[in-house]
Amino acid sequence: MTFSKHFKDLFKDVPEISYKGVDSKDPLSFRYYNPDQKVGDKTMAEHMRFAICYWHTLNWSGNDMFGSEIFSHPWLSNDISDIFEKAELKADHIFQMAQMMKIPFYAWHDRDVIAEGDTPKESVERLVKFSDYLLKKQEETGVKLLWGTANAFSNKRYSAGAGSNPNPEVFAFAASQVRTAMEVTHKLGGDNYVLWGGREGYDTLLNTNIAQEQDQLGKFMSLVVEHKHKIGFKGDILIEPKPKEPTKHQYDFDVATVYGFLKKYGLEKEIKVNIETNHAILAGHTMEHEIAMADALDIFGSIDINAGDYLLGWDTDQFPTDDLDMTKMMYYILKAGGLKKGGLNFDAKLRRQSCDVKDYLYAHVAGMDAGAHGLLSAHALLKDKVLDNFISERYKGWQSGFGKDILGGKLSLADIADKVENENINPQPVSGRQEMLEGMLNRYL
Amino acid sequence: MTFSKHFKDLFKDVPEISYKGVDSKDPLSFRYYNPDQKVGDKTMAEHMRFAICYWHTLNWSGNDMFGSEIFSHPWLSNDISDIFEKAELKADHIFQMAQMMKIPFYAWHDRDVIAEGDTPKESVERLVKFSDYLLKKQEETGVKLLWGTANAFSNKRYSAGAGSNPNPEVFAFAASQVRTAMEVTHKLGGDNYVLWGGREGYDTLLNTNIAQEQDQLGKFMSLVVEHKHKIGFKGDILIEPKPKEPTKHQYDFDVATVYGFLKKYGLEKEIKVNIETNHAILAGHTMEHEIAMADALDIFGSIDINAGDYLLGWDTDQFPTDDLDMTKMMYYILKAGGLKKGGLNFDAKLRRQSCDVKDYLYAHVAGMDAGAHGLLSAHALLKDKVLDNFISERYKGWQSGFGKDILGGKLSLADIADKVENENINPQPVSGRQEMLEGMLNRYL
Amino acid sequence: MTFSKHFKDLFKDVPEISYKGVDSKDPLSFRYYNPDQKVGDKTMAEHMRFAICYWHTLNWSGNDMFGSEIFSHPWLSNDISDIFEKAELKADHIFQMAQMMKIPFYAWHDRDVIAEGDTPKESVERLVKFSDYLLKKQEETGVKLLWGTANAFSNKRYSAGAGSNPNPEVFAFAASQVRTAMEVTHKLGGDNYVLWGGREGYDTLLNTNIAQEQDQLGKFMSLVVEHKHKIGFKGDILIEPKPKEPTKHQYDFDVATVYGFLKKYGLEKEIKVNIETNHAILAGHTMEHEIAMADALDIFGSIDINAGDYLLGWDTDQFPTDDLDMTKMMYYILKAGGLKKGGLNFDAKLRRQSCDVKDYLYAHVAGMDAGAHGLLSAHALLKDKVLDNFISERYKGWQSGFGKDILGGKLSLADIADKVENENINPQPVSGRQEMLEGMLNRYL
Amino acid sequence: MTFSKHFKDLFKDVPEISYKGVDSKDPLSFRYYNPDQKVGDKTMAEHMRFAICYWHTLNWSGNDMFGSEIFSHPWLSNDISDIFEKAELKADHIFQMAQMMKIPFYAWHDRDVIAEGDTPKESVERLVKFSDYLLKKQEETGVKLLWGTANAFSNKRYSAGAGSNPNPEVFAFAASQVRTAMEVTHKLGGDNYVLWGGREGYDTLLNTNIAQEQDQLGKFMSLVVEHKHKIGFKGDILIEPKPKEPTKHQYDFDVATVYGFLKKYGLEKEIKVNIETNHAILAGHTMEHEIAMADALDIFGSIDINAGDYLLGWDTDQFPTDDLDMTKMMYYILKAGGLKKGGLNFDAKLRRQSCDVKDYLYAHVAGMDAGAHGLLSAHALLKDKVLDNFISERYKGWQSGFGKDILGGKLSLADIADKVENENINPQPVSGRQEMLEGMLNRYL
Repeated sequence: MTFSKHFKDLFKDVPEISYKGVDSKDPLSFRYYNPDQKVGDKTMAEHMRFAICYWHTLNWSGNDMFGSEIFSHPWLSNDISDIFEKAELKADHIFQMAQMMKIPFYAWHDRDVIAEGDTPKESVERLVKFSDYLLKKQEETGVKLLWGTANAFSNKRYSAGAGSNPNPEVFAFAASQVRTAMEVTHKLGGDNYVLWGGREGYDTLLNTNIAQEQDQLGKFMSLVVEHKHKIGFKGDILIEPKPKEPTKHQYDFDVATVYGFLKKYGLEKEIKVNIETNHAILAGHTMEHEIAMADALDIFGSIDINAGDYLLGWDTDQFPTDDLDMTKMMYYILKAGGLKKGGLNFDAKLRRQSCDVKDYLYAHVAGMDAGAHGLLSAHALLKDKVLDNFISERYKGWQSGFGKDILGGKLSLADIADKVENENINPQPVSGRQEMLEGMLNRYL
Repeated sequence: MTFSKHFKDLFKDVPEISYKGVDSKDPLSFRYYNPDQKVGDKTMAEHMRFAICYWHTLNWSGNDMFGSEIFSHPWLSNDISDIFEKAELKADHIFQMAQMMKIPFYAWHDRDVIAEGDTPKESVERLVKFSDYLLKKQEETGVKLLWGTANAFSNKRYSAGAGSNPNPEVFAFAASQVRTAMEVTHKLGGDNYVLWGGREGYDTLLNTNIAQEQDQLGKFMSLVVEHKHKIGFKGDILIEPKPKEPTKHQYDFDVATVYGFLKKYGLEKEIKVNIETNHAILAGHTMEHEIAMADALDIFGSIDINAGDYLLGWDTDQFPTDDLDMTKMMYYILKAGGLKKGGLNFDAKLRRQSCDVKDYLYAHVAGMDAGAHGLLSAHALLKDKVLDNFISERYKGWQSGFGKDILGGKLSLADIADKVENENINPQPVSGRQEMLEGMLNRYL
Repeated sequence: MTFSKHFKDLFKDVPEISYKGVDSKDPLSFRYYNPDQKVGDKTMAEHMRFAICYWHTLNWSGNDMFGSEIFSHPWLSNDISDIFEKAELKADHIFQMAQMMKIPFYAWHDRDVIAEGDTPKESVERLVKFSDYLLKKQEETGVKLLWGTANAFSNKRYSAGAGSNPNPEVFAFAASQVRTAMEVTHKLGGDNYVLWGGREGYDTLLNTNIAQEQDQLGKFMSLVVEHKHKIGFKGDILIEPKPKEPTKHQYDFDVATVYGFLKKYGLEKEIKVNIETNHAILAGHTMEHEIAMADALDIFGSIDINAGDYLLGWDTDQFPTDDLDMTKMMYYILKAGGLKKGGLNFDAKLRRQSCDVKDYLYAHVAGMDAGAHGLLSAHALLKDKVLDNFISERYKGWQSGFGKDILGGKLSLADIADKVENENINPQPVSGRQEMLEGMLNRYL
Repeated sequence: MTFSKHFKDLFKDVPEISYKGVDSKDPLSFRYYNPDQKVGDKTMAEHMRFAICYWHTLNWSGNDMFGSEIFSHPWLSNDISDIFEKAELKADHIFQMAQMMKIPFYAWHDRDVIAEGDTPKESVERLVKFSDYLLKKQEETGVKLLWGTANAFSNKRYSAGAGSNPNPEVFAFAASQVRTAMEVTHKLGGDNYVLWGGREGYDTLLNTNIAQEQDQLGKFMSLVVEHKHKIGFKGDILIEPKPKEPTKHQYDFDVATVYGFLKKYGLEKEIKVNIETNHAILAGHTMEHEIAMADALDIFGSIDINAGDYLLGWDTDQFPTDDLDMTKMMYYILKAGGLKKGGLNFDAKLRRQSCDVKDYLYAHVAGMDAGAHGLLSAHALLKDKVLDNFISERYKGWQSGFGKDILGGKLSLADIADKVENENINPQPVSGRQEMLEGMLNRYL
C-alpha cells in the first residue's frame, strides 16, 4: 500500500465524519461523540479536548523490531528533498485530519515537526522558522496546540539519557532543544509543555550512579521551570511517567515515583504529570489508579489516551476501544475536576497491518467514540452519586467523634491504644460490595 | 510427615552444622559461611546479621490456596491447649534452630509469638507477659532480636486495612497492637521495628478514597514515630514495601513510592525501608535496584532475604539460592555502607513438598551459604574497584568545568543552550560496556 | 459478619430476582438475562447453561495467604458435628441460591459435597449415600448437574500430584476418588466429568522426571476414559487447563498443550477441555483465544466463567463483569457451535471484603447479566456477519485456483517456488482493519 | 562511535583471546572455555558447538522502537553501493570474529547474507551465487554452518504472516525463499535448517481464521520436509518456538504447542525444535523446562542461547552471563544426550549503549565462558548422579509391583480403586527436598 503525496486525494471519497447516533453502524460516524452536546455544564468537546499527534500518526513508518517500513508516507521518503517542503506536507496532513475528525488540538515533538539540522543552531533555526507555518495553519483551521515537547531520546547522542547522561554535553544539548521547543510552544499558544524521559534511566546498574543521575534530572527540571517563568509561559509543565522500555528502568516509573522525585527537588507545585494508559499498565497499574493517585497527590495534568494490551509486556500504543476502561478513565478525570489545560492525546499508532490511510480515520473515530461513551457513562454515574454516596457512607466514621479526633491530632498512639483496651473495642468487617459496584457500573454503560 | 513435639528429637542425629570449605558436598555444611572470618574490617557474622523468623518458619502449616496443612507443628494443633505452653514450645524451637545454624538474630510478628486473646487487653497482657520468656531465651542463647512487628492484616477485622481502614476503630485496634509490639521490641533490645502494610491498599478503586486513606496512614506513621521517641526506643522504624497481594494495590508499592509518601508526611528522616527480594520483583524491580534506590534516597534499613520466582506472579517466598543475585544484593548493601541496625531476615517458607523438619536446616544452610558467597564476591569486587573505577570515569565530566557549573547552579537553561548553539557542541555516544561488566562480575563469583 | 445457619433467613427480605429491562438500576435485577427470551433458535437459558458451584461458593471461607476465615458458613464450623447434616445444609443452600437466581445447573467436587472419611472406603460410601439427597434436591428444584469432579489436590497426600505422583499409591488413591465421583456424576445425570490437574506438574525440575510423569498421566486418563465407557456414561470427559499455581508448572498449561498431550496418548477424540478465563490469562492468552483454539482443534467442551485481573499474577477467580470480554467470549462460543453438553460455570469467589451473604446474589446477578449482554451482542454480530464476511473476503484466495491447489497438495515446494520466480509474483500487504473491526464490535455492544 | 570499514583495523590491538584459567581477570580471556579440554568423552568444543550469527551481530544497527541507528556498520550504509561487495565485507567480518573467538560455527538468514533483489528470481540468484564465497570462507577458516534460514517476516509483504498469510501468493513467495535457503544450506554442509514463524500468528482474532491458518502452516511444513528428502539434505529441520512479539500470538508458542502442531500434521518424526532462552521466558517457562520438555517429547534439536531479562516483557536478546542458568541449561542438554546436529547459537545483540566494536568480543567471551562454566558444573553434577539418584529413588515405586502393573496396563480403574478401598491404602507425603537440591546444585558451580 503506497500513500499518495496528499492524503486529501485518498480521503476525497470519505463523506463527512459526523455524529449519527447510537444505532449507527457506519464505522466512519460517531455514535456518542457529538462535540457541541452539553454534558453537565460543558460541551463534549470541552470535556474531551482530544488531540491528534505527530509522533505515531505522521512519523512512524510501520517498522517494528522484526519488520521494516510499511506505511509509505511521502514525508518519510527521499522523494522530496526540501526539508521545509516535507515539513509543510506533514503539517498540512495533520491539520487536515484534525479537521476531518473534529479534533480540536494537536501535539508535537520538535524533531517530528521538522528534521534536525547539521548543527544545534540550524536545528533551532529550522523549528523557529517553521513555527510560523504552524501558526498560520492553527489560525486557518482553529486547531490549537495541546503541547509541544523535545525528542531527547531517539538520536544516538541520547543513548545513555539526556538530563541524566554521564556526559554534561548531552545534558546541554537537551537543554538547547528544550529551550527552543518550550519557546515555540509558548509562541503557538500551547497549553502544556511535556517532558518524557524515555532514556532517563538505566540499562544496567553496573555502570550507573543513580543518585548522581537523579540530581542531574532534578537540576534539569529546575532549569526548565525557571525558564518557563522567565519567558512568561503560563502552560503546565508535565512529566510523562513510564516504568521501562527502551531502558530497563526509567526514573519516572509511575505517578507516585514522579511525585517523590518532585518532592525531593521541591518541584511538586511546578510540575504535573501526563499519564499514558499503556505506561500505566506496564508499571502494573490501571489507568484509573494513576489518575486517582495523581489527583490525590495534586499533580494531575493531562492524558495520553493510547491503550496497551494487558497480555503483552511492551508499549503497543494501540487506539483505545474498550468502553469500560474509558468509562473508568473518564470517571476519575471528572473526579479530578476534569481536564483543565490537559487533553486526551492520541499517542497511538495503527497496528502494523492497518496499512491503509483510511485506517487513521477508523482508528481515531473508534477511539473518540469510546471516549465519548465513557464520558457519558461517567457523568451519569457521578450525577447519580452511585460511588460517591457509597464511599461517603463507608468512611463516615472519620468525619466526627473518635475518627475526627485521631486525624485532627488530638490523640497520641497511647491514648488511642488505651481507649481500645479499656473499652474493649472490637470492630467487625463490613462488606466492601465490590461485585455490586461493578454491576452498578455496568448499568451506566 | 508428622513432627514430633520437639524438633530436638528429630534433630538429634544431625551433626553440628559447620564451615567445611568450598569443596564440601555435605548439604548440612557451609562452603562459604564462616561466621568469624574477617571480610574487610568486619566478620562475616557482623556483615550478614542473619535472622530466623517466626512467621513462615513456625507459623505456616504448609497450606496454600489449593491445599490444606501439611506441616504438623505441635503448636498449631489442638493437642496442646495451654496458650503459654504452646508459645514456649515455639520459642524453644526457634532459638534451638538459630543456635544449630549459628544464626545470631530472630524476628517476630506479635500474633506468632503468642495467640491473640479474647479482648484487646488480654492480647496485650499475653504478649507482655510472655516477653519475659523471650528475654530469658535471648540471654541463655545469645540470639538477639532483629525486629518485632504487629500482624495487622490476618484477622478479619483488618480485611479493609489497618491504618487505612474506613472504620476508625480498626485504626485504633492496630494502634493498640503496634504500641505493645513496639514496647516489647524495645524491652527485648530489638534493633528495629517493622511495619508491613499488607492490606493498606485497595481491592477496588470503586469503593476507595485514596487521598483519605493516605492521610490516615500518614497520621498512623506519625503517631508511631512520636511514640518511639516517647518511650526512648533507639531502633529504626521500617516500612516494608510491597506492590500487591493480598490487595490489588498496596500503598507502599516500592522504595520510590514509600519515599514519596514519607516526604509527603514529613517522615523521611524518621522511617527507613525493609526491602524484600520477592516484593521487589513483584513491583518489576530487581532487588539490587531497590537497595540502590533506597541508598540514593537515604532510607535504606534492612532486608527480607527471601527470593521469588521470576516467572510466577505471586509471593513465593522461597529460600534464596542464586549466588549471582546474592552477589548483586550484597554489593549494593556494601555500597550503602553495609547493614547497620538492619539484618538479613529469612522471611522464607519451605516449598510445600519440603515437609520434613530437616528441610528447615537444608534451606537455611543453602540460603546462608549463598549469601556468604555473595558477600565474598561483592567484597572483592568492591576492593578491586571494578565498578567504582568504571563509574567514576564515566561521570567524570560532572566533577569539574562545565558539568560542575551546571550542577552548581551557575548557569541558566538559556546559558547552557546558548553555549551548545554557539560552540556547536556535538556529543557522541560512548560504550556503556554492559557485557564487559557482566563478564567481570562473573570473574568475582 | 456472621451468617445465620440458614441463608433463607438472611434472604427472606430479598424480592424475586427478575428481568427488569435495560434501564433497571436495581442491582438485584437483570437488564439482559431473560431466561425464556429467544436468541436465534434457542432461549437465553439454553444458550448460557449457567451453573453455580460448590467450590468457591460454599466451601471457601474467605481466607487468603495473608488472612484467615471471614465467611462464617455454618457447614464450615464445628457447631454442627454430624457430617450428613452439614452436607444437607450445604446442598439446601446451593439449590436455594440456584433457584433464587434462575441458575439451571450446579457443579461439585466430591470433597465439597461431603467430607472425606477416615478410610477410602468410608469416603466412597459417604458420597454414594449422600448422592441420594442430591438426586432428591435435583428432582425437587429442577436444577441439574453440569459436572462432577474429584478433588485430588487439596489433601496433603496429593502434594506431589495425583496421577503424576512419584508414589503409585497416590495415583491409586486418586483412581478411587475418580471412579466414585464419575459414577455418582453418572447417577445424577451429569452432563460432564471434569479433571483439573492442580498439582499435576512440578515445583522444581530438579526432582522431577517429566517423561515418566506424563506417561503416568496418559495412563490415568486412558483408565478414566475406559471406565466411562464401561459404565455407559454419555457425558463428556473434560480436562481443565491451567499453566501454574499452586505448582510452578502444570502439565495442562493451556488448550494447545492439552491437545498435544491428548494426541500423544491417542485420547483426542475422547477428552475435551473445560476452559477457564483466569487460567487463560495466566497462560498469556485471552479467553477468546483459548475457545477459538479449542474449536480449531475440535476439543471445545465447557467454560469456567470466572475472570482474573489482568494486572495480577495469580488466580483471583473474580466474578466476570466486563461486557466486552463477555461479548468476545460468547462470540467464539457461538462460532464453536454453542455450548452443547458444556455450560458457563461460576467457578468464582467473592472478594474477601464482600463478606455479606447478599454479595453472593449481587455477584452472580452481575456476572449473569454481563454474560447475557455478551450473548446478545455476539448473536447480533454473528447474524450481521460483520466478522464472517470480512474474514471470508480476506482468505478467499485459498478457495480456488492457486491457493486451492497448494492446500490440495497438487504442488510441490519446487512447483510453487518456480511459479513465484518465473511469474515474478510480488504480493503486497492489505489492511487487516483491526481498529475498524474493534470499532464495529463496540457498535454491537 | 563510527566503525571503520574493516573490523580488523579496530581489532588489531586485540591480543589473542585464549584460555587463561579460572583466576584470570582479563575480560578478553576465557576462564572456563578451553576448546580442546576433554569433558567426559568429548572436548568442550564438541560439547558446546557455539555459533556466531549474522542476524544481530552484523545486521542490527542498534535501533530500537525509540531510537535510531547507533552502530555504523559499513555494510549497512550507503557508502558501498555494490551488493556483492557489501556481502563480502559482512562475510569477512563474521568469519574473522569466529576465528578470533574460536567459534566453530556460524548461522544466517538469507536476507542478511545478501540483500533481496528486485525480483524473486534475482533474490534467488544472488544468494546462490554468493554462497560460493561463503563456501570459500568456510574452507579457508574451518568455520562451519550450523544452520541457514529464510527471513520471511521483515519485508512488508509478510506483515500478515508467511505460510499462514491470507494471501496464497505470500505463502508462495516464502516457499521460494525457503527452497533456496534450504538448498544453499545443503550446499554449504549446514547441519540444520531453521524456521522461525515470527509472524505466523495473529494481531487480532477479529480478522483471523485460526483453523485455516494452521492448515496452511501444516501444508507449508509438509512441503518443506518433502523437499528436504528430495534434495537429500540430511540435516534437521527445526521450528523455533516463540509465544508473541511481533504478533500478539504466535502459533509456535512453546515446545509443547509445537509438539501438538507436529502431531496434528503427522510431522513429529520430521521436525525438531530450536529453543531460545528469551522465547522460553516470554512463554512463562524456564529454559531448562523447554529443553526437558523437548527431550521428553523427543523433538530436541538446537539452542539459541541469548538470554532475556526476567523483568522485561519483550525480546531483549541479551548475551547470556548467568552461570546458574547456564548450568541448568547445560544439564538438561546433557540429559537429552547432548547437542548432536544442534549447537549453541548466539542469537544475541549487544545492548544499544555497547556501541564499540570491541563490545562484540567482550560479549561473546562472557557468554561462551558462562556456557563453559555451565558445562563443567553440569557434567560434574551428572557424573556424581546427584539428581539422578534422587530421582530414581523418588519414582522407584513405578519400577515394580503395583506401579509397574498400573503402567503396564494390567489393571483397570476399578481394579485399582478396589485395591485402595479394600486395602485401606493411605499414602503419606514425602519430602521433595527442593532446597537441599538447590543447595547441592550450588555446590557444583
